[in-house]
Amino acid sequence: MSTAKETIGIGMVGHAFMGAVHSHAWRSVHRFFTPPLIPRLAVLGGRDEVRAKAAAERFGWEDVETDWRALIARDDVDLVDICTPGDSHAEIAIAALEAGKHVLCEKPLANTLAEAEAMAEAAAKARANGVRSMVAFNYRRVPALAHARKLVASGALGEIRHVRSVYLQDWLSDPESPMTWRLHKDKAGSGALGDLGAHIVDAAQFVTGEKITGVSALTNTFVKERPDGDGGTGQVTVDDTALFLGRFTGGAVASFEATRFALGRKNAMRLEINGSKASLAFDFESMNELSFFDGGQPATEAGFRRILVTEPEHPYVGVWWPPGHLLGYEHTFTNEVADLLTAIGDGTDPEPSFEDGLRVQQVLDAVERSAAEEARWTAVFGVTRTGVAEE
Amino acid sequence: MSTAKETIGIGMVGHAFMGAVHSHAWRSVHRFFTPPLIPRLAVLGGRDEVRAKAAAERFGWEDVETDWRALIARDDVDLVDICTPGDSHAEIAIAALEAGKHVLCEKPLANTLAEAEAMAEAAAKARANGVRSMVAFNYRRVPALAHARKLVASGALGEIRHVRSVYLQDWLSDPESPMTWRLHKDKAGSGALGDLGAHIVDAAQFVTGEKITGVSALTNTFVKERPDGDGGTGQVTVDDTALFLGRFTGGAVASFEATRFALGRKNAMRLEINGSKASLAFDFESMNELSFFDGGQPATEAGFRRILVTEPEHPYVGVWWPPGHLLGYEHTFTNEVADLLTAIGDGTDPEPSFEDGLRVQQVLDAVERSAAEEARWTAVFGVTRTGVAEE
Amino acid sequence: MSTAKETIGIGMVGHAFMGAVHSHAWRSVHRFFTPPLIPRLAVLGGRDEVRAKAAAERFGWEDVETDWRALIARDDVDLVDICTPGDSHAEIAIAALEAGKHVLCEKPLANTLAEAEAMAEAAAKARANGVRSMVAFNYRRVPALAHARKLVASGALGEIRHVRSVYLQDWLSDPESPMTWRLHKDKAGSGALGDLGAHIVDAAQFVTGEKITGVSALTNTFVKERPDGDGGTGQVTVDDTALFLGRFTGGAVASFEATRFALGRKNAMRLEINGSKASLAFDFESMNELSFFDGGQPATEAGFRRILVTEPEHPYVGVWWPPGHLLGYEHTFTNEVADLLTAIGDGTDPEPSFEDGLRVQQVLDAVERSAAEEARWTAVFGVTRTGVAEE
Amino acid sequence: MSTAKETIGIGMVGHAFMGAVHSHAWRSVHRFFTPPLIPRLAVLGGRDEVRAKAAAERFGWEDVETDWRALIARDDVDLVDICTPGDSHAEIAIAALEAGKHVLCEKPLANTLAEAEAMAEAAAKARANGVRSMVAFNYRRVPALAHARKLVASGALGEIRHVRSVYLQDWLSDPESPMTWRLHKDKAGSGALGDLGAHIVDAAQFVTGEKITGVSALTNTFVKERPDGDGGTGQVTVDDTALFLGRFTGGAVASFEATRFALGRKNAMRLEINGSKASLAFDFESMNELSFFDGGQPATEAGFRRILVTEPEHPYVGVWWPPGHLLGYEHTFTNEVADLLTAIGDGTDPEPSFEDGLRVQQVLDAVERSAAEEARWTAVFGVTRTGVAEE
Repeated sequence: MSTAKETIGIGMVGHAFMGAVHSHAWRSVHRFFTPPLIPRLAVLGGRDEVRAKAAAERFGWEDVETDWRALIARDDVDLVDICTPGDSHAEIAIAALEAGKHVLCEKPLANTLAEAEAMAEAAAKARANGVRSMVAFNYRRVPALAHARKLVASGALGEIRHVRSVYLQDWLSDPESPMTWRLHKDKAGSGALGDLGAHIVDAAQFVTGEKITGVSALTNTFVKERPDGDGGTGQVTVDDTALFLGRFTGGAVASFEATRFALGRKNAMRLEINGSKASLAFDFESMNELSFFDGGQPATEAGFRRILVTEPEHPYVGVWWPPGHLLGYEHTFTNEVADLLTAIGDGTDPEPSFEDGLRVQQVLDAVERSAAEEARWTAVFGVTRTGVAEE
Repeated sequence: MSTAKETIGIGMVGHAFMGAVHSHAWRSVHRFFTPPLIPRLAVLGGRDEVRAKAAAERFGWEDVETDWRALIARDDVDLVDICTPGDSHAEIAIAALEAGKHVLCEKPLANTLAEAEAMAEAAAKARANGVRSMVAFNYRRVPALAHARKLVASGALGEIRHVRSVYLQDWLSDPESPMTWRLHKDKAGSGALGDLGAHIVDAAQFVTGEKITGVSALTNTFVKERPDGDGGTGQVTVDDTALFLGRFTGGAVASFEATRFALGRKNAMRLEINGSKASLAFDFESMNELSFFDGGQPATEAGFRRILVTEPEHPYVGVWWPPGHLLGYEHTFTNEVADLLTAIGDGTDPEPSFEDGLRVQQVLDAVERSAAEEARWTAVFGVTRTGVAEE
Repeated sequence: MSTAKETIGIGMVGHAFMGAVHSHAWRSVHRFFTPPLIPRLAVLGGRDEVRAKAAAERFGWEDVETDWRALIARDDVDLVDICTPGDSHAEIAIAALEAGKHVLCEKPLANTLAEAEAMAEAAAKARANGVRSMVAFNYRRVPALAHARKLVASGALGEIRHVRSVYLQDWLSDPESPMTWRLHKDKAGSGALGDLGAHIVDAAQFVTGEKITGVSALTNTFVKERPDGDGGTGQVTVDDTALFLGRFTGGAVASFEATRFALGRKNAMRLEINGSKASLAFDFESMNELSFFDGGQPATEAGFRRILVTEPEHPYVGVWWPPGHLLGYEHTFTNEVADLLTAIGDGTDPEPSFEDGLRVQQVLDAVERSAAEEARWTAVFGVTRTGVAEE
Repeated sequence: MSTAKETIGIGMVGHAFMGAVHSHAWRSVHRFFTPPLIPRLAVLGGRDEVRAKAAAERFGWEDVETDWRALIARDDVDLVDICTPGDSHAEIAIAALEAGKHVLCEKPLANTLAEAEAMAEAAAKARANGVRSMVAFNYRRVPALAHARKLVASGALGEIRHVRSVYLQDWLSDPESPMTWRLHKDKAGSGALGDLGAHIVDAAQFVTGEKITGVSALTNTFVKERPDGDGGTGQVTVDDTALFLGRFTGGAVASFEATRFALGRKNAMRLEINGSKASLAFDFESMNELSFFDGGQPATEAGFRRILVTEPEHPYVGVWWPPGHLLGYEHTFTNEVADLLTAIGDGTDPEPSFEDGLRVQQVLDAVERSAAEEARWTAVFGVTRTGVAEE
């Protein structure tokens, strides 16, 4: 059976955890959504050919390349999907954009502010030529958070006063848990801050529609040495946790915390927003639910409502299952590539853009600078300087 | 300092668990509420003088009597509060009513239907002379359940379709847990059925404002012998659990379960009602909360709301603490005697009446008859016969 | 890229809701699991060729057949997956088994006990020839319920005393909601009973490892006429709700309720089991969680534990995402076909078997017979007769 | 009936909200606990005689004084209970202690650090003469928090890494909500910081058994003018919210937030602690529960446990009701005075001492200094200076 629809060739670099979930999204998106372009899983990039081929077969890719430059150069690659650690994002993304290939880049956008700025610049140039780019803050595609964004944008919350967000995991809680690339500053850029903090900064800015203007921060490394897996020990050169207070453009005050030492919390990415008219709360460990308090109801009837965000009218949900039939982690990626394909097909710019990724990077940078200077209040670079704060 | 308010002399029979909590209510009620009559803790009745005197001192009673007939006869006793096991309720209550004393009687009203009928008859006669009576279904005075009743009565739920209620405890789960009077049929009348089932039957009838018309039931005794505390064993002659299906006057279907074997459930008295317009749910283990689903809201915004029933506008709450400052088990009794004192002072009939207690007894009786006849559908005596069903 | 693995040709009949989710499972299973056979989505069966072709393209099937007999007869079909309404299950399944094709059949197994018996008989015959059959009680593949089964089987709960299970939905709560095939007895067999009740009967028997020996039941139809979608009205000929009490082979007492009128409950398939040593509770609306109470802990430390069933060691979870990254509804089907493919490849019999499906049908039959006879206690056919009760 | 027990005469200054709840505690304590001294509600102090007399009658006090100095001087007053706003605490407490009267003082201990230091000094002097003093951080007497303290002290949590605590209310969320003394800096000292922040600082130090060594803080006033109730407007001179990061003596990092603008949160005093071996979490809106995660359990069985802190073996619970029968807000005060009476009777020093109150004040002071200096990291005065940090 044939389809008249145009296809889009995908070249994906990296095939670990993120590669697995991205592959599933590319394979599945048109089975549920009706995107203008059907993804073709053309090439998988990986340095080790044997491992890359095994992954390609496993995940359903047609071919492999061991050099990402070759992958970018291929005629059957229209879009480059970057699933590598953060230290290679800038180089690959900029090369792909310059080659006229659309780019989907995993978060955080980059390991340093300078890289992120160069990437945003490259994205702006490419955009002028109709080349699209997107950073993969997949939590924007959790239906509950997309719905939360709609509620705030509709004015339902009134003036935002409080934002509190934590991202709690516990997989490093055991000091004997071995080293990984995520614990090396040169590979990962930072620790919990870039890995988890990036998500909550983006989510908070996304849902509120505001920007963080300044922060006061502290970071900590609880376990400074870990087994390296070869009988020796490795030095942990990133933060184990980052905590920061902040202020938003609209006057709200905020607190953030990212850690991989919150024993018992497996993936507790939480966001609570208190407005003058309503409040909302979310926890990724119950990702199909949004908690909502409507301050306009009589006191005797008011209460936090557990909205099961599984109704066909909720964002993204209509193409999936009936009410009460839950979605999982991977659906955030399928939803994400559906939006990306639609934007490419429609010739519009997808969100979150590389500029959005840069804005997150600017916050992370301010956090690191504040933490290095005794938690001193630190303006977010770019927000105050470029007037983004006035948005 | 003196008060101009009239007092009312209380004589209480029994001083175990229920005696302790009733005493606290009588001592405290006028410190929070403004009842027309101030209770005077005149006499405590108990068969063993030494133990009765100790309890009186502990609980704040002025005097003791070892014979409940003497207690009733005293001039300083205006109201008799019956806190004994169920086998003596009928005798004491009827004698007190005939002596012109108001009566508060612990639940279940009686151990047999015949006793309950005699008590209701005595209450009706006494009522004609301005003598008041009330059965102590204290759960009606949980603010959340009183508020639930108001919601149903206001029509907020529409037509009631489903009632499901359980009362789960676990204190008999261990087979080595010793005998108590509650496990002897001649003392307690029945087991979980009268102890716990009576509460949920009354609560369900109270909140819905409807009556149960028929039931299909099964009962079970998991542990038939237990240590008697003297090195021997005693026979358990009551049910350990009772489950029954039912129908309500308005057409709703229902399920009920009472057990003292639900390991891990300490006092889970739960009630959920699904109507055509809204639903509500309650769990006594979170007694300050009412869960409410408003079916009139758009699907994207609807959800079960956790109403913290601690607002001043909620039933009974205004005299207590600020929002979010919880009430506990004992407050249900203080609220209860406040209502009783108000009714006596105002010359109106308090609820739940002995007739309400009888209606519960009629349901329990139907449950036992159904369980004895292979769960055969069994009409609730009185409801169908006397046309109460047509209410 | 080629794979050396053998493929298995799938022919699926029906392409509505169940067809969509089964297709996704067949497409995805070998991307995560490592089954001995790789499914090939060979043929989709549907009576209307145009609609079947559209579905096939959407879901990824290679070809279509409008006659299910032709589908069964095809050489490229090794396994027939039956996703039609219950009235055609028996005919298709028996024909497929007789043709030597493996069968996966949606639940409930059949609309009548006679059909289910014939199916079980056909499955037994086919089994002798190495032909495998499975009924699609997908909730057995919820990791939390699979883990619950392991806990019970390990003896962690001790003697089972209480089982309580409800399956609550609300999509028929509105009387103006139109007719569907699910409301016609000749198409659906029964209403909430077969649709939802079948799931909880199977889940309760699966998790406890016991059988239901008898029931006492009532059913109700709240809304007897509905818009037929053509301006007229249709008669609802099935139950809107079914409630029943039961006893298990091991002595436990139980209550069950299935309804599509529990306003606000979207997919609340719940199961609680209280044993002599521990208790567990599950709610499909939070399907990644299992609530567990360990009665062996000191009273001061004991409590219901919210186990996030997302650890690699939990059943099925290892092939999916990291801890705290939730799975959804569809994964139960992918897990299910993984087990089926493994059984076929290994030459073993998958579970739940058609006999398991028959045992559910026998319970549903007893429920209907009891409901028709004033809730009279009704032995489950087969269990007492064939001695299954003695298992 | 008479009791042989010695009584202790109580003189209480102030009869608003705190006066009501303290009175109830003094009246009730010996009805449940068995303290060595029975409180006699001797004198109530209030500036307005008419209102004081009304309150005395309502709350059960024998006499009134309009001058607190006269109250202190009375022979029938052995203990002075200070329930006034914070600006008079120091003066009254010091005078009482110098007069040899035991003191119970509401929190926060004082409005300024200097006052708190003077009070701690006076308490130390008085202690030498057997005169006892206690600051009324009643949340230490929530059974769940007292139990949490025991768990930490037992080593069950291991090394403490994270403390996160918020105290969220919403009663000032409406800008039209009128002025109260709590919004005047000269009366209240500070806003949410002293009112709510004091509680969570004390609770966090109490449960961890550690001290906060430094903070980085921001405060905010969302609504700067409010109706004064006389048709005019008043200036809000205190913070509406205070957020701060901190470090503990043992190396843990922490975040705190106090606000009266978290719409929908009524009394959400929350504390979560993540240790290397276990974690615990508490929310006062569910004050009878403690959430506990034991990291020593196998991953498949581990989860946050909802411990219903209503077992007789739990702190304070044994004198109250059976398991699952909840306690409320007021019980924290009854438990508190029970401990105080025991300490006085036994001749030991009750906790929290005025020094404990001072330590909280030192943290609040550091918060205000940090907030005034752009969130700069600020050592907690006293902790580093006096070496308390080395404890």
